[in-house]
Amino acid sequence: MTLTLQDCRDRDAEDPLRALRDLFALPAGQIYLDGNSLGLAPRATAARVAQVVQQEWAQDLITSWNKAGWVDLPQRLGNQFAPWLGARRDELVFTDTTSINLFKVLTAAARIAAEDAPARRRLLTERSNFPTDLYIAESVCAQHGLQLVLLEPEEIPAALDDQAAILLLTHVNYRTGAMHDMAGLTAAAHAHGILCVWDLCHSAGAVPIDLHAADADFAVGCGYKYLNGGPGAPAFVWAHPRVVNRCAQPLAGWFGHAAPFAFTPGYAPADGIQRYLCGTQPIISLSALQCGLDVFSATEPLGGMAALRAKSLALTDLFIALVEQRCAGHGLGLATPLAHEKRGSQVCLTRDEGLGVDGQGSGAYAIVQALIARGVIGDFRQGDGGVGRHKDILRFGFTPLYLGFEDVWNAAEQLRQVLESGEWREARFHQRQAVT
Amino acid sequence: MTLTLQDCRDRDAEDPLRALRDLFALPAGQIYLDGNSLGLAPRATAARVAQVVQQEWAQDLITSWNKAGWVDLPQRLGNQFAPWLGARRDELVFTDTTSINLFKVLTAAARIAAEDAPARRRLLTERSNFPTDLYIAESVCAQHGLQLVLLEPEEIPAALDDQAAILLLTHVNYRTGAMHDMAGLTAAAHAHGILCVWDLCHSAGAVPIDLHAADADFAVGCGYKYLNGGPGAPAFVWAHPRVVNRCAQPLAGWFGHAAPFAFTPGYAPADGIQRYLCGTQPIISLSALQCGLDVFSATEPLGGMAALRAKSLALTDLFIALVEQRCAGHGLGLATPLAHEKRGSQVCLTRDEGLGVDGQGSGAYAIVQALIARGVIGDFRQGDGGVGRHKDILRFGFTPLYLGFEDVWNAAEQLRQVLESGEWREARFHQRQAVT
Repeated sequence: MTLTLQDCRDRDAEDPLRALRDLFALPAGQIYLDGNSLGLAPRATAARVAQVVQQEWAQDLITSWNKAGWVDLPQRLGNQFAPWLGARRDELVFTDTTSINLFKVLTAAARIAAEDAPARRRLLTERSNFPTDLYIAESVCAQHGLQLVLLEPEEIPAALDDQAAILLLTHVNYRTGAMHDMAGLTAAAHAHGILCVWDLCHSAGAVPIDLHAADADFAVGCGYKYLNGGPGAPAFVWAHPRVVNRCAQPLAGWFGHAAPFAFTPGYAPADGIQRYLCGTQPIISLSALQCGLDVFSATEPLGGMAALRAKSLALTDLFIALVEQRCAGHGLGLATPLAHEKRGSQVCLTRDEGLGVDGQGSGAYAIVQALIARGVIGDFRQGDGGVGRHKDILRFGFTPLYLGFEDVWNAAEQLRQVLESGEWREARFHQRQAVT
Repeated sequence: MTLTLQDCRDRDAEDPLRALRDLFALPAGQIYLDGNSLGLAPRATAARVAQVVQQEWAQDLITSWNKAGWVDLPQRLGNQFAPWLGARRDELVFTDTTSINLFKVLTAAARIAAEDAPARRRLLTERSNFPTDLYIAESVCAQHGLQLVLLEPEEIPAALDDQAAILLLTHVNYRTGAMHDMAGLTAAAHAHGILCVWDLCHSAGAVPIDLHAADADFAVGCGYKYLNGGPGAPAFVWAHPRVVNRCAQPLAGWFGHAAPFAFTPGYAPADGIQRYLCGTQPIISLSALQCGLDVFSATEPLGGMAALRAKSLALTDLFIALVEQRCAGHGLGLATPLAHEKRGSQVCLTRDEGLGVDGQGSGAYAIVQALIARGVIGDFRQGDGGVGRHKDILRFGFTPLYLGFEDVWNAAEQLRQVLESGEWREARFHQRQAVT
C-alpha cells in the first residue's frame, strides 16, 4: 500500500501522545531526528534553571542543600525515573557521566569476579560498542589483569563460557539501532556464572527496559539523549541488590560515604546505590535534568512506556517504508533490524561505498549535511571504508515524545529530494566539522 | 588602637576592589562569610545560563558542540583561569569533581611511582585533610598496594623519606584556614624523590598560587567555592608537563582520547592535560562556572591576585582584631594562624569544650546558628569532643571579591551580641541540619 501525506496527518490526529510535543521547545524550522545524540529542551527547563540560579543559589545559598533538597537530588531523580527501567526505589542515582559510572560498575564487577571466580580472566563486549565503553573497559581490564575480548554480535553466545568474568553490552547499538535481547543474554551469561553490565544510553526512555525481570547485575546510562536532560546532563547508575553492597566502588568520594557530613577520616561506604556517588554534583545541570524526567512522569497517564514504544515502532516502521517506497535506487540500505524486538528507536541507513563524489566514499556524510541544510537533523557515523563489515551510516533518531508522523513524511521527502536533485554533491556539504 | 565602625567605612571608601561586589547577586539582608563553602552567584550567571538553555541547547542543539564551543569548554575555562594558578596554556582543564580528579592524579602518581621507584610504598597526607581526599587516597592505596600514612602538619617534614612515593596535601586546611608552604614542602619532597599532589580547593582564587614556581607535580581544586561557579560546579585538574604524558589516567573516557570523534575501538590518550578528561561534561554547569571565572578576569586591571590577597589579609586581620577587642571572655580562641604566610582567606575560631548548654559541648554549633538567624552566614565544623587536638570550629570565610570592611565590623558586632545576650542557648539553635 502506498503511503500518503494524508495518512500521516491522520495518524497524528489520532496519536494519544500528540500533546507531549507541546512540553518541548521545538527548534524553529527543523525536523529533529537527533534526539539520540542530544534530546530537545523541555519548555519547563529554562524556568527551573533560572529558579536554581537566581533563588536557590543566589539568595538561599548553602541553605539550599537542605531546603531545596540539593543534597539528595541524585537519589530523588533516581527514584523518579527508576520505574522506567524496572528498577526499584533507592536502587538508581543520577550522577557523574556514563563513562565514569561505567568505570565504577566495571571495577566493582571485576572485584566481585576476582573474589567469586578468580580463574575467569575475560571481559567480553561488542566490537562496535560505543568507543568510550571500550576505552573504559580497556582501562579496567589493564588495572585488574583481565583480557578484553571484542566480539561481533553473533559471536557473543558462544563466547559465554567459564573463562569469562564479565559481559558488557550496550542494549541498543549507537551505529545501527540494533537491540540486544537483554533478558536472554543475561540468562545465558548467568548460566555460565558471568556478571552482566548493561549500558542503556541508547535505550533508556526509548524502549521498554525491566532490569529486575532481566536480572541484570549493573546498568549505566545517559541523561542527555532520550531523557532530554540537557547537554552533558548527569548520567545514571544502577546495581542489583544482590551485588550493590558486595564491594566499595573505586571512586570512593564523600557523597558515597555512609555518613558524608560526619567528616570521619576513614571511608565507610553507604548501604545501597548511594555508595556509587562520589563528589559534589553539578546542581544546575542536575536540576535541568529533572525537567526531562518530569516529561516521562507526564507520560504515565497517557500509557507510559507501552504507548511510547508503540508510537516509536510506528514512526520507525513508517520511515523505513517511506525510504523503501520513495528513495529507492540511490544505494541506500537498512542497518537497523526490521524485527521489532531487535529495533531501538532509531533508523540507520547505509550507503554503499564508491557512490560518493568522484566515486570516492559513500557520500553519506554529504547527504546528511544536505539534509541538515534543509532542516532535517540526523547524523553521520563513519564506516570502515569498505575494508570490514561497517558501512557508512545515516542515522535518524525517532523520539516519540516530540516527533509526529507528518515529521517522518517530511523527513523522507527531504531525503528523496536531496538524492534526486544530487545537491549533496555540492562542495559545501563535504567539509567536516570537529564534532558530528 | 581601638577600631571603630568609621574606620571600616573609610577603608571601604578607599578599597580599589570595591566595585567588584557589584558583579555579584548579594543575598538580601545577609553578611555572607561562607564563600569557602559555596561562593555567591555572579550577576551575569543567570543570563548566561538562560542563553545556554534557550538558545544554544533549545534552538541550536547539536550544532552548539562546534558553534558555541561546547566541545572544548573544559580547555577554554582552564586556559582562562590558568594564570591565577601559575599554570601555563593548555595545562589546566575544568571537568568532573574534585574527588574524581583527585582519583585520576593519585592513580597517575601511583603508576609513575611504581615505574620509577617501586620500593616506595607510602602515600603521605595530613590527618585533618578534607575527608573526601582521605577516602579517595584510601581507595587508590588499596588498589595499588600503597600504605596511607596520616600525619599531623608538624610531622610532615620528618616523614619525607625514601619510603614515601606520594605527598598529598590540601594547600589551605578546610577546618583551620592554615596554609602550607607549597614551594617549601614540594622542594623538600622532591629532594627525597616524592611526587607532590596539591588540593587547591580552599586556596584557588583566594591566595596567590604559582604551581610552576612551586614545581608541583599535580593539582586539583574546586569550582564552587572561591571561584563562584555555582553549586557543584565542575572542578579543575592540572599536571606538570614533565608528568602529564607519563601514563594514561584510569578514567580513560572518550573526551580524553587523542581523536575523540574518530570512534576508534582502542584507547590512545591525548597529549597533555586533555587526557584528564573522561566523559561528556555538564555544559550548563560548566557555562555557569565561566561567569565566576570572568570575575577574576575583571579583577586583573584592578591589581589581580596581589590586590585580592592584600584585601583578604586586611579583612581577616580586621576580623581577628575585632573578635579580640570586642568578643573577649566567651571562650573563643583562634585556630587560624596569625602569620600572613600561613593564613588562607578564612578565620576559624575555636570554642572550649564544656561551655555549651548545661556544660555539654562547646556551644559552637548553636552560636553559628544564632549568627545565621541574625544574617551572618558562617559555618560550624565539629571537633573531636575534647579527646584529641581538634576543638569545635566556628568558620568564617572572607572573600575579598564581594566582602567589605563594614561587613567585617557588622559580623563581629553580631557575634558579640550573640555571645553577650546568651541567645544562642535557646533550644531552636541546637537542632542539627542534614548538611551544615
